[in-house]
Amino acid sequence: MIRYGMVGGGQKAFIGDVHRSAIRLDNRASLVCGSFSHDEQASKTFGRTLNIEEDRLYRDYIEMAEKESKRDDKIDFAVVVTPNAYHYEICKEFLLHDINVVCDKPLTLTSEESKELLKIKNERNLLFCVTYSYTGYTCVKQMRCMIKDGTLGKIRFVNCEYPQSSLSKKKKKDSIGSSWRSNPTIAGKSHCLGDIGTHIENLSYFVTSLDMKRVSARLDTLVDESVIDDNACVMVDFEGGAKGLFWSSKIANGYDNAVRIRIFGENGSLEWVQEDPDHFIYYKEGGTRQIMSRGRDDFDSESQKYSRLPAGHVEGLYEAFANIYEAFIDTINLKNSGEIIDERDVDYPTAEMGYQGIVYVERCLESNEKDGEWVSIK
Amino acid sequence: MIRYGMVGGGQKAFIGDVHRSAIRLDNRASLVCGSFSHDEQASKTFGRTLNIEEDRLYRDYIEMAEKESKRDDKIDFAVVVTPNAYHYEICKEFLLHDINVVCDKPLTLTSEESKELLKIKNERNLLFCVTYSYTGYTCVKQMRCMIKDGTLGKIRFVNCEYPQSSLSKKKKKDSIGSSWRSNPTIAGKSHCLGDIGTHIENLSYFVTSLDMKRVSARLDTLVDESVIDDNACVMVDFEGGAKGLFWSSKIANGYDNAVRIRIFGENGSLEWVQEDPDHFIYYKEGGTRQIMSRGRDDFDSESQKYSRLPAGHVEGLYEAFANIYEAFIDTINLKNSGEIIDERDVDYPTAEMGYQGIVYVERCLESNEKDGEWVSIK
Amino acid sequence: MIRYGMVGGGQKAFIGDVHRSAIRLDNRASLVCGSFSHDEQASKTFGRTLNIEEDRLYRDYIEMAEKESKRDDKIDFAVVVTPNAYHYEICKEFLLHDINVVCDKPLTLTSEESKELLKIKNERNLLFCVTYSYTGYTCVKQMRCMIKDGTLGKIRFVNCEYPQSSLSKKKKKDSIGSSWRSNPTIAGKSHCLGDIGTHIENLSYFVTSLDMKRVSARLDTLVDESVIDDNACVMVDFEGGAKGLFWSSKIANGYDNAVRIRIFGENGSLEWVQEDPDHFIYYKEGGTRQIMSRGRDDFDSESQKYSRLPAGHVEGLYEAFANIYEAFIDTINLKNSGEIIDERDVDYPTAEMGYQGIVYVERCLESNEKDGEWVSIK
Amino acid sequence: MIRYGMVGGGQKAFIGDVHRSAIRLDNRASLVCGSFSHDEQASKTFGRTLNIEEDRLYRDYIEMAEKESKRDDKIDFAVVVTPNAYHYEICKEFLLHDINVVCDKPLTLTSEESKELLKIKNERNLLFCVTYSYTGYTCVKQMRCMIKDGTLGKIRFVNCEYPQSSLSKKKKKDSIGSSWRSNPTIAGKSHCLGDIGTHIENLSYFVTSLDMKRVSARLDTLVDESVIDDNACVMVDFEGGAKGLFWSSKIANGYDNAVRIRIFGENGSLEWVQEDPDHFIYYKEGGTRQIMSRGRDDFDSESQKYSRLPAGHVEGLYEAFANIYEAFIDTINLKNSGEIIDERDVDYPTAEMGYQGIVYVERCLESNEKDGEWVSIK
Repeated sequence: MIRYGMVGGGQKAFIGDVHRSAIRLDNRASLVCGSFSHDEQASKTFGRTLNIEEDRLYRDYIEMAEKESKRDDKIDFAVVVTPNAYHYEICKEFLLHDINVVCDKPLTLTSEESKELLKIKNERNLLFCVTYSYTGYTCVKQMRCMIKDGTLGKIRFVNCEYPQSSLSKKKKKDSIGSSWRSNPTIAGKSHCLGDIGTHIENLSYFVTSLDMKRVSARLDTLVDESVIDDNACVMVDFEGGAKGLFWSSKIANGYDNAVRIRIFGENGSLEWVQEDPDHFIYYKEGGTRQIMSRGRDDFDSESQKYSRLPAGHVEGLYEAFANIYEAFIDTINLKNSGEIIDERDVDYPTAEMGYQGIVYVERCLESNEKDGEWVSIK
Repeated sequence: MIRYGMVGGGQKAFIGDVHRSAIRLDNRASLVCGSFSHDEQASKTFGRTLNIEEDRLYRDYIEMAEKESKRDDKIDFAVVVTPNAYHYEICKEFLLHDINVVCDKPLTLTSEESKELLKIKNERNLLFCVTYSYTGYTCVKQMRCMIKDGTLGKIRFVNCEYPQSSLSKKKKKDSIGSSWRSNPTIAGKSHCLGDIGTHIENLSYFVTSLDMKRVSARLDTLVDESVIDDNACVMVDFEGGAKGLFWSSKIANGYDNAVRIRIFGENGSLEWVQEDPDHFIYYKEGGTRQIMSRGRDDFDSESQKYSRLPAGHVEGLYEAFANIYEAFIDTINLKNSGEIIDERDVDYPTAEMGYQGIVYVERCLESNEKDGEWVSIK
Repeated sequence: MIRYGMVGGGQKAFIGDVHRSAIRLDNRASLVCGSFSHDEQASKTFGRTLNIEEDRLYRDYIEMAEKESKRDDKIDFAVVVTPNAYHYEICKEFLLHDINVVCDKPLTLTSEESKELLKIKNERNLLFCVTYSYTGYTCVKQMRCMIKDGTLGKIRFVNCEYPQSSLSKKKKKDSIGSSWRSNPTIAGKSHCLGDIGTHIENLSYFVTSLDMKRVSARLDTLVDESVIDDNACVMVDFEGGAKGLFWSSKIANGYDNAVRIRIFGENGSLEWVQEDPDHFIYYKEGGTRQIMSRGRDDFDSESQKYSRLPAGHVEGLYEAFANIYEAFIDTINLKNSGEIIDERDVDYPTAEMGYQGIVYVERCLESNEKDGEWVSIK
Repeated sequence: MIRYGMVGGGQKAFIGDVHRSAIRLDNRASLVCGSFSHDEQASKTFGRTLNIEEDRLYRDYIEMAEKESKRDDKIDFAVVVTPNAYHYEICKEFLLHDINVVCDKPLTLTSEESKELLKIKNERNLLFCVTYSYTGYTCVKQMRCMIKDGTLGKIRFVNCEYPQSSLSKKKKKDSIGSSWRSNPTIAGKSHCLGDIGTHIENLSYFVTSLDMKRVSARLDTLVDESVIDDNACVMVDFEGGAKGLFWSSKIANGYDNAVRIRIFGENGSLEWVQEDPDHFIYYKEGGTRQIMSRGRDDFDSESQKYSRLPAGHVEGLYEAFANIYEAFIDTINLKNSGEIIDERDVDYPTAEMGYQGIVYVERCLESNEKDGEWVSIK
């Protein structure tokens, strides 16, 4: 069985638990070491509840990278689920010790940092996954297949939105910034765009493979004065002529996590809403709108293999995460068996995509500072 | 009974028939004269099928305005449903003969023309309705009431979209421009923005009363090379700090007329989708998402009065048009009874709104020409 | 133009206004006479508001049938929209004076009465429409076409429901029976089954052409003790082996008029929900669920001709009624032009269907009295 | 950590894997032994892939019950996921060795068997869960809380349906009965009613606590002549006056697992659709229809504790199963800590409910044989 360790994701951390649970679902990797908190004692206490052996409960990620790299039964990959600001140094440490990495998104605070991680990873021929969760859904994978197959013909327009309400209530002065996500030093300069706008950018790319040419952005501060943006509108010009419109919001009261992507092509269109993840709409030019159902309808084998349950039994976020890990572990196994891996062909979101996400945020911030002027991506 | 005449809307014209049918639904106004086509013979032949008396089947709108204005039983209003380019001169003619006007949207080709109509109308104290159809829906009126009542508190963000598919199929060279809507000389410089983007701008204003401060627009030509725009993205800054994002598209294959407006305020949010006109979602901060149903739920009397059928029996576009005419005819009756009318308080879409729409299109065109630079509305 | 008269449908009557408005929508028939109330004065006062000439404002339906039948410009049909108990005698009077009839549903209080009307109508070769409103929707007509064409193959199962909430609130003793619909002498022995259960029975037959063999019914009195049934469950065995399950309810709080029909056949299934009348779901065996959209998708010409507006502009109840009248008036014109009409082939709901509805109610009442024993329809 | 063993659920078995995965999700119980197949070698080979120690890979359930019962580190519970026919003898064996049991539904082939299991379990004071999966959803638990709290007042009517399409295609002679579910000797006398109709009966009871008084059933054989029923309609009279209508179908082509329950009470109604498990509709008499969202809206703490993810991140079937196990393991822990457990108060579906399900199927079969005659449940 594959072995992994974790940095971050302690007692109260939400996303760390999601990663561990999702990995357990498939029982293909076991958690054998970790450093779950800056507070060494808290980390160890917590690690014991996860049945990790004492000598693999490390003081910090530095010790962990060092000691694991020397073991015969060393971890196959490290999962980094700390606040954003620490991703860079931690990921780098593991890469420099030749350990594959899975890191939460957004990848780093700056694109320079991401670029460096990318460079090291490539030089050392390592695998690196950035867990953009929505890429794990079977329907998202199927839409990707259909577009790769040319089902839609030339893509013309992508509309993607992510309305959420986490910042819609005005907070009392005292509580502002209580979450690290609202602290730019730790979370990155942008709040809404960095946290959820990057999901849009990634989802659009993952599904359509369209590269961006330039962006024009308006980052709004409508409620929470302590953040740069709690709402973000971005116009996108893609390479090749397609256009895009992206909207993410943390002040959309009444909304939960209503990610919606709509892709319009020459020969049809696709629409997927994350809150109904097992279906998408496929309109074929000259035909009708079809409700595609995971597990029932004709999916490509490349996406169908991620379908776990019969149609009509919902698969949610844990399963999407599990699918990302399934693809990542498959790739590790392939690599371990001697195959040469090109991460441009893998089925999980890559460090390259993580880097793209940070570039996207930086260019949008620049455009916003210039009052919406178009900024080139390259 | 109120009397009206019509210019345009001949044999094959779609929208003219909608106007006439909607007016008949309530039986409060009768069509007594008209000039239905540039082709005098066609006009008269068609007019006879509508049971109009021979001497009121006019050669053209000039004769109609002149002769009607001299009759004791003259028309109370003229309905102008010609292609856009002719709105200006026709409306002007009737106004100059002191006849109230109902004109289809967009009002004119240029804002100067609209401004002039507005001026004449005001000087002569006439009534003027521009038939933005979606303002007629009871749910739209109820959302307007709720916002006027302060139910949402300060408005923060408006997202409105109108995806449609009428231009999504590439046309053969020969057939391009076969419709007058694709001919800029007749329809106006913008196609998508002018035809359906104006519905968005109007719906946003009608419901929220938010004035625009400036716009940044990208008009896309994704399919039909003969038009300036078949897809349009507009960022809006409103007076007072609210922001908006508008998307209209004629290349959204798979979509029919999926107008959707979402309004986010301090104390809640609203969402209405035109294809399910009898419901809207009201989210009250701290509460739940509520499905408001016309005819069943607690609507204000100002909007409730437009509800014709018990809840669950759908009211569609004809009824929305009928509601616009109901408000217009009510206002005519009030005016005829001696009351002084301020059209800022009426319940139908006004010439002022028609003018705003043309200004909006012009500013967006300007912004687009300047590669998305923000352009002030005033 | 076709001429018609009306019996019932006075000042406050809801459904009479729907009939008149729907007829006006198409402008193919004009209301020339009527007896709108038992109260002669009220009837005449009201009739004047409809611009009916004084000598055609009749004392009662007897005078109306007599005098109209002698005129050269006599009415082409009479519309009967009184409470149920009076349908029989009024319809009979017009038939005996050789005047075509449109009558609201349910047709009569007893099947004997309906049978007699049917007999007279047939002997005198008259046209007779019973306005089951849902048969007027274009999507319903399209589903009918598809089943007639064999698209679904052999029908296996029909599930139809009509939940409504009109009786869900317990009424104070005094107000019970304030509506004639709750008075069995006037409305008929069954309340829920008679009023809305008949819509289900008719919709099932109209769409599938399946004849019933036997029924097993439980009529529930869950709230309103003054009525026989405020909720009704019926199992149906059709001729030829198909089965059905019908549920109608007047105590389904939260529901408006949520008629839903689902038809399962050998080669696919259909689903239509009245509150979204312009769409239905078509599942083709081996394919996907398709959202069929009136006006956009490939409908048969027989149903397509009832589509008035482009897809995405909703057509509601008025339009459905107008479609019924469109078919009826087409048939009158055909008959007037000398063609022989077989009402089994027409596109409107017939007296035969009206009769079937009453038989259905009687058999269900019998089954209910026998504690759900199966009762043969024939 | 809690220990469990499994009987059935070998290599290709679908539901066994769901149980194991769901348990792993929470990491509170570990699989330490099993007998996964009648084929001892296959069982052991498969067991090894699950990292079970060699001496706990048992020849059969008899050896497993015997040997485990003698260990100090014996299992806390056995999970029985074999075909239905073997449930009885296997569950009995574990109970007789004082081991708690989790068994898939339906519990046994006959109610006598279920009754006996119930008796042994009670005598020996053991815990027994029957995994009716839909009881695990947080929204289902919240509806249960609301009804227990009296939110709906007196329940009047329950409508529940489970349309599915697994038998909608006519099978070739040869393939009939290839699945054990179609073999009455192994699966039980009823197919559709036994397999999915019991889910309806259970869901209705779990949410409303309404006891049945009598049933009238029609079991249809519409496609698959090899089974007693592929479609089932049941009328239910509950104790206390409420009524019910249940429909389950395996021939509903186009449908996946569209379980829908609607409950109408004096003071409001509830509606939940399994394919959108994180929401339900709550209508409060005099109010509006509210879309309740797991994780966002005001849920009772008793149900809220099962919510794992923030609202908008879907939780599906694995999570529902995990919730059942969460409640079961909580109860085991309570019991192990010395508390006295009354299984009428627990939060998982019990053996008593399993027994009720079999009684329900038997009474429906009896009613069907008597052509729908009402059959008393007691």
